[in-house]
Amino acid sequence: MKIYPVIMAGGSGTRFWPLSRKARPKQFLALAGDQPLLTATVRRLPPLARAEDIYVVCGPVHAAAARKLVKELPARNIIVEPCARNTAPCVGLAALHVAARQKKGIVAMLPADHHIARPEAFREAIAEAARLAAQGHIVTIGIRPHAPETGYGYLKVGARLAGQGKGRGKARVPARNQAHKVERFVEKPDVVTAARYLADGHYLWNSGMFVFRADVILDEIRRAMPVLGEQLDAIQKSVGTPGYQRTLARIFPDCPSISIDYGVMEKSQRIVVVPADFGWSDVGSFAALPEVRPVDHLGNVAEGDALVIDGRDNVVIASGGRPVAVVGMEGVVVIDAGDAVLVCRKDRAQDVRKAVEELARRGREEVL
Amino acid sequence: MKIYPVIMAGGSGTRFWPLSRKARPKQFLALAGDQPLLTATVRRLPPLARAEDIYVVCGPVHAAAARKLVKELPARNIIVEPCARNTAPCVGLAALHVAARQKKGIVAMLPADHHIARPEAFREAIAEAARLAAQGHIVTIGIRPHAPETGYGYLKVGARLAGQGKGRGKARVPARNQAHKVERFVEKPDVVTAARYLADGHYLWNSGMFVFRADVILDEIRRAMPVLGEQLDAIQKSVGTPGYQRTLARIFPDCPSISIDYGVMEKSQRIVVVPADFGWSDVGSFAALPEVRPVDHLGNVAEGDALVIDGRDNVVIASGGRPVAVVGMEGVVVIDAGDAVLVCRKDRAQDVRKAVEELARRGREEVL
Repeated sequence: MKIYPVIMAGGSGTRFWPLSRKARPKQFLALAGDQPLLTATVRRLPPLARAEDIYVVCGPVHAAAARKLVKELPARNIIVEPCARNTAPCVGLAALHVAARQKKGIVAMLPADHHIARPEAFREAIAEAARLAAQGHIVTIGIRPHAPETGYGYLKVGARLAGQGKGRGKARVPARNQAHKVERFVEKPDVVTAARYLADGHYLWNSGMFVFRADVILDEIRRAMPVLGEQLDAIQKSVGTPGYQRTLARIFPDCPSISIDYGVMEKSQRIVVVPADFGWSDVGSFAALPEVRPVDHLGNVAEGDALVIDGRDNVVIASGGRPVAVVGMEGVVVIDAGDAVLVCRKDRAQDVRKAVEELARRGREEVL
Repeated sequence: MKIYPVIMAGGSGTRFWPLSRKARPKQFLALAGDQPLLTATVRRLPPLARAEDIYVVCGPVHAAAARKLVKELPARNIIVEPCARNTAPCVGLAALHVAARQKKGIVAMLPADHHIARPEAFREAIAEAARLAAQGHIVTIGIRPHAPETGYGYLKVGARLAGQGKGRGKARVPARNQAHKVERFVEKPDVVTAARYLADGHYLWNSGMFVFRADVILDEIRRAMPVLGEQLDAIQKSVGTPGYQRTLARIFPDCPSISIDYGVMEKSQRIVVVPADFGWSDVGSFAALPEVRPVDHLGNVAEGDALVIDGRDNVVIASGGRPVAVVGMEGVVVIDAGDAVLVCRKDRAQDVRKAVEELARRGREEVL
């Protein structure tokens, strides 16, 4: 079954400053392993998909850099959004491109900035999702939680899908790659609620990965977001024609800036989930690096010219070409990016953006 | 009364790494104020002493740099020790140089790396000490403590010196510039003992400053350290002659490496103390910088391109020419020296040497 993966690389987060910059956002960094997250995302797809069928969506500032990181893709497969309009217009635009090649083509929307430890299991989950998508379902990948994470959205598993496994109704715990209805999506919980979700067994992490047929998602968008539906219809006629760029530049900036989760998925009756477990991490902040990088026996990530003395549970990245000595510290993040240094408590890694905001306020564009 | 200050600049401490280096020890750094500690030490002496009477003792590696920092002194007043032999040989050698000019010349031995907030009060204390030294006393400057410091040695004040103030015997609390016998020297105490010393009122911080006549200290050295006494006698004949350097190079390295406190002062019957209070700090580690540098209303020292966000009681020195952002931290030291970065808990600032030791073990001479 032919699958068209579409990799969403439009992010411009600030939580990895000073490693990340406006011109070099998170998905361009080798945060897990030795290749950039975007490159790794593309390279774990074969043999599930062929290079000529893989798309990357990003903004104009990052298009050239993205192309360099995924040289194996045809240049025309880099879809450039004129401006960032959140994920609903992004998904719609990608579906137009796939539909132009194959009306009922199966699209796998994948974030460019996640880490997956077991690519084989990942491909199995996507293949199963594709099989269900071919039947008209909109399929999300739900990750079986192994900790009471408060940084992720969750989804509650509903009834087992007809024809899936033995019998019907709720399984005690949804089995891997066994599709279920989605009862509801839930926002990032507090730690008590997260612990309850973990114990319950029917809550999965929302990975932000969706698999659907191009025609199905366009229908759903038309139903749930009629304005966006009309805008996409107007763009659709131009796809593959010389007027495409001009049409896109005229219409796309007016599209509503809404996430596909909120705009479509949470309202759709066609949504099902494939529970999966393939060593997933969204690498949400520096605090997540111990999940995806080598740690020493005291829990320290120490990379580059880092020297951790009498310390535990620290994240120290010394990529500035000079030694960074960390003495007697516990649970801190220390990043030397060469032209800027960050020191932050690990449990406040989300607040790195405050440093970025303050530098912006001071007009320090050269380090943003 | 003519005074010959001798500034001991032989230190090679590692507690200010990465600001300090082998070639640029603490006394060469502008840790308090905007001139190097050594320069400030020399410049607070006039009108108590004239430049031509001020000596600096240091090692051969630092002689050229020291000369540049105190250009107002005659070049011959830089006494170069062939190698570091602790303070007893240093004091003896300095006394020889002064004695060669004036047999009973009054020497004020002063560390090069301390900060003094009130130079006028300092000069008054030294002048009083010099008056007593002229009578044959060996005078130490004791600092009235204002906190239960565990990082300083103490000395216990004994009976009031005859002819000092009204009456005899112990004062309830020794008055400023009023000389007393020293009952005993005590080592760095634990915090409970330090608190007791503070409450008692008869314990003073040992500032490491001594004032004495050249002939008196040489006699005391001959009595308490006869081997060193003979070595100094052998050097003495050569002072001022062309053979001086050769003689010094032959004899000095064999001198016992012992501190003047341990070798002479703690055993001497001639020792008296002048209690003083002139805003003294030995600037012992990065943790002491808030005493001697500007702090913001949250207790942060933030210098250079430092950005402290949601933090208190930190010491952040960004002298590397790039921003250093510190987010959500309390009580940490962050130093960017350009070619090396240090992050350390402030209450473990003494352990900075561990980083230096580890870098030495790894052969990283270029940053030591």
